[in-house]
Amino acid sequence: MPELRKDPIIGRWVIISTERGKRPTDFTSVPPAKSGGFCPFCAGNESKTPPEVYALREPGSSKDGPGWTVRVVSNKFPALQIEGDLHRQGEGIYDKMNGVGAHEVIIETPDHDMTLGNLDEDRIVDVLMCWQQRIIDLKKDARFKYIVVFKNHGEAAGASLEHTHTQLVAMPIIPKRVVEEIEGGRKYYEFKERCIYCDIVSQEISEDMRVVSANQTFLAIEPFAARFPFETWILPKAHMSAYEELEPNSVRRFARILKEVLIKINTALNSPPYNFILHTLPLQGDNRSWYHWHLEIMPKLTKVAGFEWGSGFYINPTAPEEAARYLREIPVTSNRK
Amino acid sequence: MPELRKDPIIGRWVIISTERGKRPTDFTSVPPAKSGGFCPFCAGNESKTPPEVYALREPGSSKDGPGWTVRVVSNKFPALQIEGDLHRQGEGIYDKMNGVGAHEVIIETPDHDMTLGNLDEDRIVDVLMCWQQRIIDLKKDARFKYIVVFKNHGEAAGASLEHTHTQLVAMPIIPKRVVEEIEGGRKYYEFKERCIYCDIVSQEISEDMRVVSANQTFLAIEPFAARFPFETWILPKAHMSAYEELEPNSVRRFARILKEVLIKINTALNSPPYNFILHTLPLQGDNRSWYHWHLEIMPKLTKVAGFEWGSGFYINPTAPEEAARYLREIPVTSNRK
Repeated sequence: MPELRKDPIIGRWVIISTERGKRPTDFTSVPPAKSGGFCPFCAGNESKTPPEVYALREPGSSKDGPGWTVRVVSNKFPALQIEGDLHRQGEGIYDKMNGVGAHEVIIETPDHDMTLGNLDEDRIVDVLMCWQQRIIDLKKDARFKYIVVFKNHGEAAGASLEHTHTQLVAMPIIPKRVVEEIEGGRKYYEFKERCIYCDIVSQEISEDMRVVSANQTFLAIEPFAARFPFETWILPKAHMSAYEELEPNSVRRFARILKEVLIKINTALNSPPYNFILHTLPLQGDNRSWYHWHLEIMPKLTKVAGFEWGSGFYINPTAPEEAARYLREIPVTSNRK
Repeated sequence: MPELRKDPIIGRWVIISTERGKRPTDFTSVPPAKSGGFCPFCAGNESKTPPEVYALREPGSSKDGPGWTVRVVSNKFPALQIEGDLHRQGEGIYDKMNGVGAHEVIIETPDHDMTLGNLDEDRIVDVLMCWQQRIIDLKKDARFKYIVVFKNHGEAAGASLEHTHTQLVAMPIIPKRVVEEIEGGRKYYEFKERCIYCDIVSQEISEDMRVVSANQTFLAIEPFAARFPFETWILPKAHMSAYEELEPNSVRRFARILKEVLIKINTALNSPPYNFILHTLPLQGDNRSWYHWHLEIMPKLTKVAGFEWGSGFYINPTAPEEAARYLREIPVTSNRK
């Protein structure tokens, strides 16, 4: 069973794999070349993944067979394990608990050669709705406090399989970054009685210097204090805390702006590796007034070095205003693949 | 002038290079191959760096010429600029100030083929004392609130020049990570009236499961909630807040344990890229009772992916107890180069 351990100084939880721990020799060799041939996420290879948790399927097709457009399976090498209770305990001044949680993979398409940004809008809608369904299902489990949905695209961004997929981790703690957002949002709310993200949306629309794209429901911006070049956030314009409550019409508009932003980033930066992370409301506690869900997209263009790691203080070589200007000017034709 | 901008939600400051901003095309090409020939940090090439700020020199040798063992110059491409005042200002809900600060390079040896861990103990003492001298000098500047000393070793860890060097950045803010350490330390002190780092030292010595090395004055451990495999911290055993106040005898013991740890890491992990960061007391404010300086060393063995970035929640595939056992068992002969 993996262990969750808390840094006693700054309160950050870490997952420690205590079982199949990596030994020094596991790190010394160059990672093996991609197996050009076999991919467990491709249609026809369903038996090579853990059993299907959820799928969008053609009528008549059967579980763990072909005929799906989006398919969700447990991660074969989960960071957290689904069975067991938390068993919180101390060890002198330290705190730990069992590494209980869910770790799932959302296979976004049966087609190995597609990327999320290249999928048809309808297929992206399927993926985004699938995230909602999994969150709605997993939040019934009272052990979980947070669900993070994220994507590693490209090897340099940490993807271990090329076939396009999103990951989902349900965990018994709220990650440090989200705690900070909630604390920051709460303090601002106490002071202003307004959501800070709503105020950001409003200032960005009126200044119009960092806007990448917008539609009826969503705004895509380069944030004012972006850590990374071309870091891009997509936020609902109106206040909304929980991603899974987004209505179908709005999911479509989210799919549209996400596709647009990914095409712009791919065109401007020659299809870079990237990560994105959905920031949504914790499953417990009442933070609705000050938490505003959003997606953070981070192209991986620079190496993050010791200075950033050690200080939490980032150096961004591209001003967000510059990045926004580049991305805005890239045309996106509506039926472009 | 670079700009310092504050994330309005979580309060993290970021340096934005607004002048020679990188354009999309700057990121699309593969980084150029190392120039095998010329190195500005080698002895004899002193005229190719900005002028010397400080050096340990042979008697009779002259500034910006050969004859030095450690040499400090301004960074040719500084993240912050030394001239000017802070000019703090708002921009709607956002906060910013001028990117004022010092960015220096400590060239640890004139010999291109050495690494910090390979240097003789006396030469490491020189480097460590040089850090102290630069901190003592720069803390006279009332604009600065913090000085971070760090090392990027190897290209994958962000080093842009191969010749071994440390960097130093003096800045007008306290980096987020240090603020968190101070807050955590202060809360613990209010509760226990003891320094949390002192309690960690004491528990680690008595449990003896995560200790890598120790001497009269210092302890090297794998921290309980390590973010990365083989992450290693070196702490003074007795309470001490400001690195620059370390006495010469103790600097020697710090050099000895640092050399030992670097040799162990290099042997166990085949000379990996790594970062280290000195965590020391902020220049202003009274945090002496609860802040305990230390060095954090992070071998770069795994790719940090979206999950970690987005959540601040790390997955460490090697238990610290395992890593400590490996490192402990690696013999270090005292006069090994």
